Amino acid sequence: MAGIFQRTVRLRAAVRHLCPHSTLTCAARLSPADFHGPFLTCTSGQFVASTRKLHVEPKSSSAGAPERLPFSKVTDEDLAYFRKILPGRTITDPDLVESSNVDWLKTVKGSSEVLLRPQTTEEVSQILRYCYNRNLAVNPQGGNTGLVGGSVPVYDEIVLSTSLMNNILTFDNISGILTCQAGCVLENLSLYLEERDYIMPLDLGAKGSCQIGGNVATNAGGLRLLRYGSLHGTVLGLEVVLADGRVLDCLATLRKDNTGYDLKQLFIGSEGTLGVITAVSILCPRKPKSTNVVFLGCETFEELLKTFQLCRGMLGEILSAFEFLDSECMRLLNTHLKLPNPISDCPFYIVIETSGSDPDHDSQKLDNFLEEAIASTFVTDGTVATEESKIKALWSMRERVTEALTHDGFTYKYDISLPVERIYQLVTDMRQHLGDRAKSVVGYGHVGDGNLHLNITSPAKDPALLAAIEPFVYEWTASCQGSISAEHGLGLKKRNYIYYSKPSQAVALMGNIKAMLDPKGILNPYKTLPDNLK
Amino acid sequence: MAGIFQRTVRLRAAVRHLCPHSTLTCAARLSPADFHGPFLTCTSGQFVASTRKLHVEPKSSSAGAPERLPFSKVTDEDLAYFRKILPGRTITDPDLVESSNVDWLKTVKGSSEVLLRPQTTEEVSQILRYCYNRNLAVNPQGGNTGLVGGSVPVYDEIVLSTSLMNNILTFDNISGILTCQAGCVLENLSLYLEERDYIMPLDLGAKGSCQIGGNVATNAGGLRLLRYGSLHGTVLGLEVVLADGRVLDCLATLRKDNTGYDLKQLFIGSEGTLGVITAVSILCPRKPKSTNVVFLGCETFEELLKTFQLCRGMLGEILSAFEFLDSECMRLLNTHLKLPNPISDCPFYIVIETSGSDPDHDSQKLDNFLEEAIASTFVTDGTVATEESKIKALWSMRERVTEALTHDGFTYKYDISLPVERIYQLVTDMRQHLGDRAKSVVGYGHVGDGNLHLNITSPAKDPALLAAIEPFVYEWTASCQGSISAEHGLGLKKRNYIYYSKPSQAVALMGNIKAMLDPKGILNPYKTLPDNLK
Repeated sequence: MAGIFQRTVRLRAAVRHLCPHSTLTCAARLSPADFHGPFLTCTSGQFVASTRKLHVEPKSSSAGAPERLPFSKVTDEDLAYFRKILPGRTITDPDLVESSNVDWLKTVKGSSEVLLRPQTTEEVSQILRYCYNRNLAVNPQGGNTGLVGGSVPVYDEIVLSTSLMNNILTFDNISGILTCQAGCVLENLSLYLEERDYIMPLDLGAKGSCQIGGNVATNAGGLRLLRYGSLHGTVLGLEVVLADGRVLDCLATLRKDNTGYDLKQLFIGSEGTLGVITAVSILCPRKPKSTNVVFLGCETFEELLKTFQLCRGMLGEILSAFEFLDSECMRLLNTHLKLPNPISDCPFYIVIETSGSDPDHDSQKLDNFLEEAIASTFVTDGTVATEESKIKALWSMRERVTEALTHDGFTYKYDISLPVERIYQLVTDMRQHLGDRAKSVVGYGHVGDGNLHLNITSPAKDPALLAAIEPFVYEWTASCQGSISAEHGLGLKKRNYIYYSKPSQAVALMGNIKAMLDPKGILNPYKTLPDNLK
Repeated sequence: MAGIFQRTVRLRAAVRHLCPHSTLTCAARLSPADFHGPFLTCTSGQFVASTRKLHVEPKSSSAGAPERLPFSKVTDEDLAYFRKILPGRTITDPDLVESSNVDWLKTVKGSSEVLLRPQTTEEVSQILRYCYNRNLAVNPQGGNTGLVGGSVPVYDEIVLSTSLMNNILTFDNISGILTCQAGCVLENLSLYLEERDYIMPLDLGAKGSCQIGGNVATNAGGLRLLRYGSLHGTVLGLEVVLADGRVLDCLATLRKDNTGYDLKQLFIGSEGTLGVITAVSILCPRKPKSTNVVFLGCETFEELLKTFQLCRGMLGEILSAFEFLDSECMRLLNTHLKLPNPISDCPFYIVIETSGSDPDHDSQKLDNFLEEAIASTFVTDGTVATEESKIKALWSMRERVTEALTHDGFTYKYDISLPVERIYQLVTDMRQHLGDRAKSVVGYGHVGDGNLHLNITSPAKDPALLAAIEPFVYEWTASCQGSISAEHGLGLKKRNYIYYSKPSQAVALMGNIKAMLDPKGILNPYKTLPDNLK
């Protein structure tokens, strides 16, 4: 087996820790001078050029924002109140508010003039009580790393940032249960835990900027979901401030609690539309003692799926990731990033990660699996990494695909959840459907989670191509009972596509829940729920 | 190490599969002739002797049922309708309805005269639409194995049984996602999956009778929670019929779906008060290839906790259970069930289970852990089992404690969730608090989940003893931010204790949710929510 697999790979240093989403270019933080993208900039229902003379394009009726709702506008009296309760933390300098108005992808831009930076739950409560009474709209904001325009204002909503709520409250090193304020940066929590021999149950490319409150509010998936499950299982408690300022204390630190309805679940994935998460308790796994990564090649997607099945059986409890990319992704990595293929050319590539408590056992399991995978001819080539730098290098072949795409042209991006055996058929069908209208049609993603990232490039933005992609992609997804947003949420951009994945009965009930918890609709308006909600 | 640990144990055959809750006596199913317990029998707010002349006792104001709410009574016209839509499955013979009126513990008895046995979601929808219009109360019922009086009628509610909704709908052997009707018996699902090299993510003593719909409705915990997490993480989709007959289709079979609020979560643990679960999709783990059980003794609870920490670190990903019992439990097992202690006498005993994909690796990990545990003097004695019969025998030392308790006298039972480092302090404090008023005060449970089963016996029912236990036990639990119901739910019996674990703000919001989904309150009335809900 050692002869088949190259145990040494020479790849460029991984950029996983430099790039908030391990995608696009690696500018870690944006400044206003960086803005070049096609913004959605809205003022009173009309789309106008921003004051910085950025290029502004008309929006499609579905993805664009609806007209501004009749919320109050911020007055001097309002500012005086905010300055009284948040002295020095009520920001109105346009240059300082600017970065809170623009999303990380630089595609959505609001026009808020007020950024509030509370430090305590009581301050959040005071802010919301006031805003609720005054009918002022509020945009809760964590690390602002979301990808669907959910984390920035659409018009002049007040930005309520949790950035200064960054205290770790408790950590129980017997149970592994951590409680912290919502504004703790994910990477800081990871570092804190690793010193105590634990890890966070989620890991994201954006970990250097994203905040745990935002992670919970968007039900972030990420790299460890296959192993540790979703936040619906690992989040044990939440403290939430409701729209009218009431504090809902569900910050339990218990693995089991069956006293009444599990209210915290409502707020996981609600994108700040039902309440502002102010504190989180979360169950953390022990830090693994050994990690291995293997990069494999397959001739067909069917063989890739067979490899997945074999892998689940033979690696069992140590399997922590099973990701894939296709040969088109590899071509873009080679062409645009000059990343060499660490193995021979294949139609499909797999990245498998194991993590466990015994390095020898993990290595043996991996060797046994690889021997079997080769003997059964499911895989045709591969390479293994056990050292940290090589592990990062192999991971970068998966993580830098999105970056490579940005060099290929304008990219139409879809984050689709499908029954695992169907995920690549969508790429094949899309390729056939688009013919030569697209420059590249590529597929990659989380096989283990049934999550496909379908990306389509063209030399420039191309409305005719978009019209060929949508609603085709959504209809295809719906025909397989898939989800049109696997892990990114709906935010502003995808809110009107919800009916492709949820029946109207369910969407109506979501509307009832919104009306119950936020009857004036002041929390993160224009997000998550569709415009035509009855 | 082999010298220290006895690898052969001689214990009586385990009864795990015979006993619905692996507790009490092992009568697998009850017949009316078995009834001897103190029933809560209610007719129009008064407690009367049942027609079978059973002993009836007055109830405490908190645990007893409130007055019957002004629902309609079933008429001949109603029965004609039900017989039309459910020919042969509308049961009114009192002898046949009887077993649906009484809970498994034989402590709560309703007086329903109608048992409906739908086979399809559409039939459930028709039933509820009719009942909603007619203002007829409905008691949804699965396997009727609940322990808090949640699964039986309190007065004359119509029993809607899911027992005939027992079809497996789909199973994807790549992703391990199963969909089935709500009435599938847990053990049948387990057998189906094991043939396909998978297992259910939950396992309960009651698996031979309990149904997956009821498991989800009560958010059942069980033996595999430590490893596979709660149903909030493993349930991927639900189909639910709402109180007015609307069908809410959230039966997704996706690991990731962030399109709007995760509505299914509301119904997990809502005990049939918000809707009737008619189908479930659930993520199933691969079947482990190897299982080991070890039974250890510790001198102090602190050492037991240190063992738990060591165990999590060294067994890591193969740890699947960490349970404990105290020396009082062992005394009852010896005395009442003649079960010999498999090791030398100790103040505390631990049952650890491992399950993994490689028998040799698992065995090595276990040996390494045991050597370390002994070297550090955390444990003083122990025995290991790898064969199925011996594993069952060791498990029975933990699982038959409740059965042993029933032979010790009248038992006051508490199912408490606490921060793991506090769980035994409650037993110690309760012992000191009660002094010689109690016959036995014993503690056992799921250390890994922070779940204590505190049981107190007396020669006979003793109101003075009860007054000494309650509210002491609830106040003690509340002072540690614990839960007064870890896994059993609130049902009828514990509904009014909810405020010990949830703030009034949260309980009020639960009431709003109930009012939103079931404005007439016809679904499982008198359960889960407290009587004084505003």
